[in-house]
Amino acid sequence: MASDPDPLQDFCVADLAGTPSVNGYPCQPSSWVGDEFLFSSKLATANPNGSNVTRLSVNQWPGVNTLGLSTNRIDFAPGGTNPPHVHPRATEVGIVVRGELLVGIIGSGDSGNRYYFKVVRAGETFVIPRGLMHFQFNVGEEAATMVVSFNSQNPGILFVPQTLFGSSPPIPTPVLVKALRVDAEVVELLKSKFTSGDP
Amino acid sequence: MASDPDPLQDFCVADLAGTPSVNGYPCQPSSWVGDEFLFSSKLATANPNGSNVTRLSVNQWPGVNTLGLSTNRIDFAPGGTNPPHVHPRATEVGIVVRGELLVGIIGSGDSGNRYYFKVVRAGETFVIPRGLMHFQFNVGEEAATMVVSFNSQNPGILFVPQTLFGSSPPIPTPVLVKALRVDAEVVELLKSKFTSGDP
Amino acid sequence: MASDPDPLQDFCVADLAGTPSVNGYPCQPSSWVGDEFLFSSKLATANPNGSNVTRLSVNQWPGVNTLGLSTNRIDFAPGGTNPPHVHPRATEVGIVVRGELLVGIIGSGDSGNRYYFKVVRAGETFVIPRGLMHFQFNVGEEAATMVVSFNSQNPGILFVPQTLFGSSPPIPTPVLVKALRVDAEVVELLKSKFTSGDP
Amino acid sequence: MASDPDPLQDFCVADLAGTPSVNGYPCQPSSWVGDEFLFSSKLATANPNGSNVTRLSVNQWPGVNTLGLSTNRIDFAPGGTNPPHVHPRATEVGIVVRGELLVGIIGSGDSGNRYYFKVVRAGETFVIPRGLMHFQFNVGEEAATMVVSFNSQNPGILFVPQTLFGSSPPIPTPVLVKALRVDAEVVELLKSKFTSGDP
Amino acid sequence: MASDPDPLQDFCVADLAGTPSVNGYPCQPSSWVGDEFLFSSKLATANPNGSNVTRLSVNQWPGVNTLGLSTNRIDFAPGGTNPPHVHPRATEVGIVVRGELLVGIIGSGDSGNRYYFKVVRAGETFVIPRGLMHFQFNVGEEAATMVVSFNSQNPGILFVPQTLFGSSPPIPTPVLVKALRVDAEVVELLKSKFTSGDP
Amino acid sequence: MASDPDPLQDFCVADLAGTPSVNGYPCQPSSWVGDEFLFSSKLATANPNGSNVTRLSVNQWPGVNTLGLSTNRIDFAPGGTNPPHVHPRATEVGIVVRGELLVGIIGSGDSGNRYYFKVVRAGETFVIPRGLMHFQFNVGEEAATMVVSFNSQNPGILFVPQTLFGSSPPIPTPVLVKALRVDAEVVELLKSKFTSGDP
Repeated sequence: MASDPDPLQDFCVADLAGTPSVNGYPCQPSSWVGDEFLFSSKLATANPNGSNVTRLSVNQWPGVNTLGLSTNRIDFAPGGTNPPHVHPRATEVGIVVRGELLVGIIGSGDSGNRYYFKVVRAGETFVIPRGLMHFQFNVGEEAATMVVSFNSQNPGILFVPQTLFGSSPPIPTPVLVKALRVDAEVVELLKSKFTSGDP
Repeated sequence: MASDPDPLQDFCVADLAGTPSVNGYPCQPSSWVGDEFLFSSKLATANPNGSNVTRLSVNQWPGVNTLGLSTNRIDFAPGGTNPPHVHPRATEVGIVVRGELLVGIIGSGDSGNRYYFKVVRAGETFVIPRGLMHFQFNVGEEAATMVVSFNSQNPGILFVPQTLFGSSPPIPTPVLVKALRVDAEVVELLKSKFTSGDP
Repeated sequence: MASDPDPLQDFCVADLAGTPSVNGYPCQPSSWVGDEFLFSSKLATANPNGSNVTRLSVNQWPGVNTLGLSTNRIDFAPGGTNPPHVHPRATEVGIVVRGELLVGIIGSGDSGNRYYFKVVRAGETFVIPRGLMHFQFNVGEEAATMVVSFNSQNPGILFVPQTLFGSSPPIPTPVLVKALRVDAEVVELLKSKFTSGDP
Repeated sequence: MASDPDPLQDFCVADLAGTPSVNGYPCQPSSWVGDEFLFSSKLATANPNGSNVTRLSVNQWPGVNTLGLSTNRIDFAPGGTNPPHVHPRATEVGIVVRGELLVGIIGSGDSGNRYYFKVVRAGETFVIPRGLMHFQFNVGEEAATMVVSFNSQNPGILFVPQTLFGSSPPIPTPVLVKALRVDAEVVELLKSKFTSGDP
Repeated sequence: MASDPDPLQDFCVADLAGTPSVNGYPCQPSSWVGDEFLFSSKLATANPNGSNVTRLSVNQWPGVNTLGLSTNRIDFAPGGTNPPHVHPRATEVGIVVRGELLVGIIGSGDSGNRYYFKVVRAGETFVIPRGLMHFQFNVGEEAATMVVSFNSQNPGILFVPQTLFGSSPPIPTPVLVKALRVDAEVVELLKSKFTSGDP
Repeated sequence: MASDPDPLQDFCVADLAGTPSVNGYPCQPSSWVGDEFLFSSKLATANPNGSNVTRLSVNQWPGVNTLGLSTNRIDFAPGGTNPPHVHPRATEVGIVVRGELLVGIIGSGDSGNRYYFKVVRAGETFVIPRGLMHFQFNVGEEAATMVVSFNSQNPGILFVPQTLFGSSPPIPTPVLVKALRVDAEVVELLKSKFTSGDP
């Protein structure tokens, strides 16, 4: 699965302050680049709340520019969830580092929206094909942590509830009434739970 | 955007009855192939109901095997909708052939789930980046029709309401309660509107 | 078929006035971009002459930059033709919207230059593998229109007669005499029908 | 330029007698494969006629299967030509090994069909972008030889005169009359010079 | 960086017992596939020796077939090393799960073989561009563990010492004498430390 | 094998003096570009020493920018060698133009580091899969020359002895002692034969 184009040099450390450029960040001149860009300590900072995503896409880790990979750490409190979401530009492979997570993946329409799931425990792994909807849910008594990697430097994410009910500006209610087959007041209730800019 | 691998021959007409093969269908031997495989009449069959998708992916049109393109026609009754959905493996470009459609596209989280929209009229076109959620809604008084093309022979589709509420087996209610921030009864109401296998 | 590299962000609306950049246009800053770039009305302008191509490549539609798709509309008078041509960087899928067109495609040398053809009528579709020579010819009594899509933002086009006989500067006559196996005066006659810059 | 998909193993020597398979040949089992498949002596066979192409695509050299490269040797008598042609699936890089060749390349319509050319001498090199029309013509007093490589295991070739005038079955004369802007008798004269299966 | 071709369906679980197929494994029929293929417990099995690689390429985890990602766990005793090696078909991103590892990466010749290095501690990450030589060395007092992911289902590995001195059959000594600029007896000493099949 | 992204225009002649840009060089404006960029005479300059590489990557030949191909000529004195090396970003196809060369290729660990070899004579060809270690050694009485092509505009090269023993700064000796299974003095002897910047 070829999410990103191939690199054309050993490294192209992103110049995040550079002027906007086609399809990725411009490279920093070699003379600006020290030894550190291939390494990152950012995942070491714990964020032990309900569910917290520590991202290492190219915006957080310029060293992965043009390299076609990035990584995230997600911490879950008991009962915490990483709600149904889609990565539009990458497949994901993950490992549970501690705790136990229900991992659910829903196939496309051709599969009859088959729901695949398993409680994944520490040391076990899972894979999410590109563009499919999936979620994690901490079903253990304790906090849980997973580390995931993507085959894109910028996989993107769209949390489905936020996308349906918290977009900016909002999707018109009649569209959602027709799509969800419920009354406008149910749609308004759902919209009231999400606000624009709320992650 | 490179959705599909490159072809390695002029044509590889899919042998849909062939044994399962890696990443696409096996080619029919040249001697089985007449002149017709590069052409299809299937989009000519009208299905003028509320909203009807006539698909021409590789399963319906074996001639596009390895060619990295496919096409659909969608017909809309007045008030009909092609509800919020995602194509996991392709970008889409479309043209409205008759009528007028509200086309809505919601950006990923990095855009703050920005909602882009326009009423698109006959002869006008739109483009949907790969993996983003989008919908069409017939806001005209008359029936409407659009033709869309994808840069994959099998773009896939996941209708978001069906994926959330009509998967097989269902996503557990507590997962959706947590994700949608509403009571179990609202989730159960939504689930009751969709059944597995319902397109 | 992977004509274009993958995108690395939701959108990268082309800055057509930007300085030249590697392999595509630079992105406009997000703050310059309104809501309209995902939509285009340019195909709605009718050009009902002998044969007229209304192009929507990235040069005409900056919103498709990095998205790996583009589209054209071609209008034909009775007897009009879209003469033999090649798209060097894309496969093409097309639908006849009105009228009836003879669509001809010639396979590569490995096929013995097999000529595939069909009269394609309104609602019917065809596909042209990347880099193969093909043409359309209006065999109906009425005007005809087709809409085609490409899996590249800039598929390119080389009209074979113009390329052979109307290049700038011209291909030397002895080269064409040898290639076409005719006298210099036949080559000169053919060259006289085409002038540089003539589409 | 990504003409072919990436390999997924060190080697996949083509089983040319295998049943037809998607997008390339099936691999031979490792136990069938000796040491020789990475090497080929076929270009060493001289064919010193007017113009003779010795091909080493995957059909002639199974070892390049999935590796994304192939190579040809072309020998030219004085005055010999490799007539205008297009490779639909690959860029070409070449070196003149002996003699001197006029190499001509015609840009796409966006360049106004610009004709690029040079007399290339022994030891000098040229590059032909994918899908553009080009030719070589021996302008020296002696025989000439060039070696070219492609970034596809099966670049394909369509010799333009043969494709226009020698396809099987032939392109209808009225189509060529319209396209070439000459009388039917000129078209018939040109067709008489080429026969189906004639390389 | 596009190591692998794109998938053409949601899943293509590898049939490892299948007949050899082009560029990857054939898909299992859907009816053979249960729910488990997207998950793996194999990394949970500890192998706490000097340095032990637990691989999850497609050969160990058929579910990643066509998905363009795979993963490994490596355990290190104190003083253990994952010796200098190259992955010919993938970039690698890694996280140290416990302990502290010296991670060294040597740039290509264009960089003057620049040596990049850092002691990477638990929770910290590193990235290795495709095809570059690199190693890990446990510089801590305790055992260490890292988890790495690749953007290929089968990245391949060539341990440099084993490749130079333990190939089967061996590289001739005069070749290595010339390359390493030492006497034959030094080369023979090095060869004596490695035997074919020794990992 | 898709080493480089696809081009998005006919040509993009590299502006080597341009500011650093993502994943390749920026294009020169068309008005700066003469006719010569598709041709190069640099391989015609003989360098008949022990072993001399005349490179035509994008840095030496700006015209191949975005085209996914490049080429080298290597001249060998009797007994000369192109020592074991790896191209991290490309497969290589080569032809021996004069003389006779031992060509050796070592498979990855999955093959048990299988050593493939042949004495390749003038007119014969070989192919090296991406990322595998390989070498050439002149076993003839006379000078030898080969021409090789790569399916990347910048394949990169890492000479293994220089990378192990001549990096800048050096790899720590204890790492190499552990990896090579010999005493520190043998490692120091090897290091003494190579100095940083020495090709």
